Amino acid sequence: MTDPAQLTAQIRQLIPIFEPMGVEVVEAGRNTVAARIPAAPNVNHFGSVYAGSLFTVAEVLGGLFAQTALVLEGAVPLVKSLTIDFRRPASTAVVARASMSDEEAERVLAETLRDGKAEYLLEAEVTDEAGTVVATTRGTYQLRRL
Amino acid sequence: MTDPAQLTAQIRQLIPIFEPMGVEVVEAGRNTVAARIPAAPNVNHFGSVYAGSLFTVAEVLGGLFAQTALVLEGAVPLVKSLTIDFRRPASTAVVARASMSDEEAERVLAETLRDGKAEYLLEAEVTDEAGTVVATTRGTYQLRRL
Repeated sequence: MTDPAQLTAQIRQLIPIFEPMGVEVVEAGRNTVAARIPAAPNVNHFGSVYAGSLFTVAEVLGGLFAQTALVLEGAVPLVKSLTIDFRRPASTAVVARASMSDEEAERVLAETLRDGKAEYLLEAEVTDEAGTVVATTRGTYQLRRL
Repeated sequence: MTDPAQLTAQIRQLIPIFEPMGVEVVEAGRNTVAARIPAAPNVNHFGSVYAGSLFTVAEVLGGLFAQTALVLEGAVPLVKSLTIDFRRPASTAVVARASMSDEEAERVLAETLRDGKAEYLLEAEVTDEAGTVVATTRGTYQLRRL
């Protein structure tokens, strides 16, 4: 388990816009990663978390796995495409969570070592403080050796 | 043609996170709307515009049409789902642009008047300052009477 607070500081330094959004890593395990954004300043004046903030809290998970299950010297994660479905309006802080099996992580690492790159698919759920699923995402990422 | 500067001020007030991202409306016609984000603070430390910022500059277009072609008292635009494909890394300011025909606008308005809501699909292109398409999006929105 990587330290979530350390990862939070690291990603906010790499991606400056995470700072005003308040993106925070709350779980950084080999098989599950999770991130959180607070209500303010992501809630708009209609009282709902802005769509782009829901996108961000879910999208970031693909990169977090490169710090946990997909650690490979000189390799970086890239997002290739992402589909987000907005299920319900959220009016509180939200948490996005995604999982990856050991087998999938081994496949991605082996393929990247062999071919210089490998794609992986992540499905994430974004839930509000009542546990309601407010959005779901399917993202295609690539681990790539530079 | 609605005034882009006025719309910029309006959406930044409605959606506070647009302010630090620097989201700006640059075109607000009946048939075409466009928005722009600057490089800083959206460019990350890998030198590319962050995926969530590319999402945002494209996603906002669906709502802008509710200020131009889809003006209907008491009706608000909602985003239902959005797919974004990341084509190339962007390292400059980017502009997202989407179009809607008069026939499509009339259909959406008529359906909303009749049924209280109507869906519309928007395809947007996000280009960098060299004119390279860096991302494309397909968003499903709903105009809904409250």
